[in-house]
Amino acid sequence: MSRIGEPLPTPADVYAAAARLGGHAVETPLLRADALDERIGGRLLLKAEPLQRTGSFKFRGACNRLLQLGADARAGGVVAYSSGNHAQAVAAAARLVGVPAVIVMPRDAPAVKIAGTRRHGAEVVLYDRASEAREALGTRIAEERGATLVKPYDDFHVIAGQGTVGHEIVRQCGAIGCRPDAVVVPAGGGGLMAGTSLAIADAWPETQLHTAEPKGYDDHAMSFERGERVGLSGPGPASLCDALFAPKPGALTFPINVERVRGGVVVDDDEVGAAMRAAFLHLKLVVEPGGAAALAAVLAGRIATAGRTTVAVLSGGNVDPGVFRAVLNRDDDPAAAT
Amino acid sequence: MSRIGEPLPTPADVYAAAARLGGHAVETPLLRADALDERIGGRLLLKAEPLQRTGSFKFRGACNRLLQLGADARAGGVVAYSSGNHAQAVAAAARLVGVPAVIVMPRDAPAVKIAGTRRHGAEVVLYDRASEAREALGTRIAEERGATLVKPYDDFHVIAGQGTVGHEIVRQCGAIGCRPDAVVVPAGGGGLMAGTSLAIADAWPETQLHTAEPKGYDDHAMSFERGERVGLSGPGPASLCDALFAPKPGALTFPINVERVRGGVVVDDDEVGAAMRAAFLHLKLVVEPGGAAALAAVLAGRIATAGRTTVAVLSGGNVDPGVFRAVLNRDDDPAAAT
Repeated sequence: MSRIGEPLPTPADVYAAAARLGGHAVETPLLRADALDERIGGRLLLKAEPLQRTGSFKFRGACNRLLQLGADARAGGVVAYSSGNHAQAVAAAARLVGVPAVIVMPRDAPAVKIAGTRRHGAEVVLYDRASEAREALGTRIAEERGATLVKPYDDFHVIAGQGTVGHEIVRQCGAIGCRPDAVVVPAGGGGLMAGTSLAIADAWPETQLHTAEPKGYDDHAMSFERGERVGLSGPGPASLCDALFAPKPGALTFPINVERVRGGVVVDDDEVGAAMRAAFLHLKLVVEPGGAAALAAVLAGRIATAGRTTVAVLSGGNVDPGVFRAVLNRDDDPAAAT
Repeated sequence: MSRIGEPLPTPADVYAAAARLGGHAVETPLLRADALDERIGGRLLLKAEPLQRTGSFKFRGACNRLLQLGADARAGGVVAYSSGNHAQAVAAAARLVGVPAVIVMPRDAPAVKIAGTRRHGAEVVLYDRASEAREALGTRIAEERGATLVKPYDDFHVIAGQGTVGHEIVRQCGAIGCRPDAVVVPAGGGGLMAGTSLAIADAWPETQLHTAEPKGYDDHAMSFERGERVGLSGPGPASLCDALFAPKPGALTFPINVERVRGGVVVDDDEVGAAMRAAFLHLKLVVEPGGAAALAAVLAGRIATAGRTTVAVLSGGNVDPGVFRAVLNRDDDPAAAT
């Protein structure tokens, strides 16, 4: 149970989610490269969620949630607010399950993301960030249509679904006879870390878990240090990592994480850019800035890797071509170029 | 037997290669995306060889070749000429097998590729394209050191190794209950198509096989039409697809391909760039120009895809960041942006 009285998912809920998602979600590969192992002086395995449906891990949680809607809820459809990965994930899961979806997106969201959400069959309702509150708009739509709101991270079934990332890491590492010393996971609201930590801590209690956050959005790092949920004191600074802007650990995710996660590490935009270039050069994978935060933490030496095995989750790949071009253009990182 | 009297590999040699490469080569995933299926009005599966060790399928053939060197040959090491993917593949396979490797590369090869080849532990010998013949240089090195020359495509074991791409396609499609109507494969010297065609034609005799080549390098398309090996009449034009510049189908690869391949299709640089952007946007995969030729052929409508299942091989991802940036910068392809 969480402090707010809602039940929390357990490892068993993650395993049930894995069974439920079979044939729907992609079992993404664990990638590796000699060049990366050499750079960290250890073994590095990367869980490649850009290869997940809709380009990020978010599909797992959204799909697990929607597959468990009752008949009445299905008829009413679903609503979500998001300008990014959760939007596309809910849209794709809704089409798969056969329920209507309304996604509330800011009018100034990237055209590619709006088009992507529509392509998955969702109705997109645009709002002005300046003059409209998306919560009020979403609540009104939910009430008018009898639709179910799908939250991005503070949801039992969403957390259990994201946990299938951890479950797959356990199985894939087991298949190659390896048990990681550490697992590093990007954190916004903390849903991916929460689900993943359930599966990892259940299988490997000795493995150290770390969140990775962008500079200025280190609410998990601060909260782990203080042992309680701490939010950002104001709007965060400019950052490439748009997917990780949640201002405070979730009410459901934090009680799970604080029991299992050793601590949070923080990376800056230069380190994130270097990680994206390393993924381009050595893994041939397109990773979005927020999705590269854990790899950035590893390559920047934020956690001990020498002689150890480390897993970093690459959580998504939905990056604007212009941003990707700009990141590739920085050649201030000679190590990544070789 | 080929016309030149050398034995040709059979499907059994491909299956033996698959067993030999287990644990060494990556079993690369078959990727898909709703957006691509919608564009072609059918089902499209992409074999993701950028995720192979050294970033291209070439590792399969090189590794299969080197694993079968006898004790004497191992002591003498191996020599290869290449400015690209074969260089890195032979270097990495040599390190794996534990034999010394000398790679003869042009002095003006991209610094990243030279550094990559050295990183895999090979000795790199640079030559001037203008004043030195690489064959003479390589032959001299082979004679001086008693080293074995590893050819890029006209080699029994290299062809069998590349065939594991086809063998995996058969197994992976079987696992999802699908039998492709067509398989499209980029062709330079034709080694990947030859090996792949052995496995595909053995499992699915009805499946249509096509090579994909860049404009001006359509020696396979011409040769299939005439039923005999035809080379380019002179130096080819400028093209992004540096990996596919071989001037004539191989003496060993062509007899295999002409028996099994329906024909060759040709793509231009704009179509290749559009395919690279589609892979970036919808698959989150970095694909080099030559590696995108088969996807380009499919997206450009060169073969019938409506209501059918098509597999295209993405053969490699070793692309210079500057080239990738330039390709992403072209927004003359509105369909790829949605």
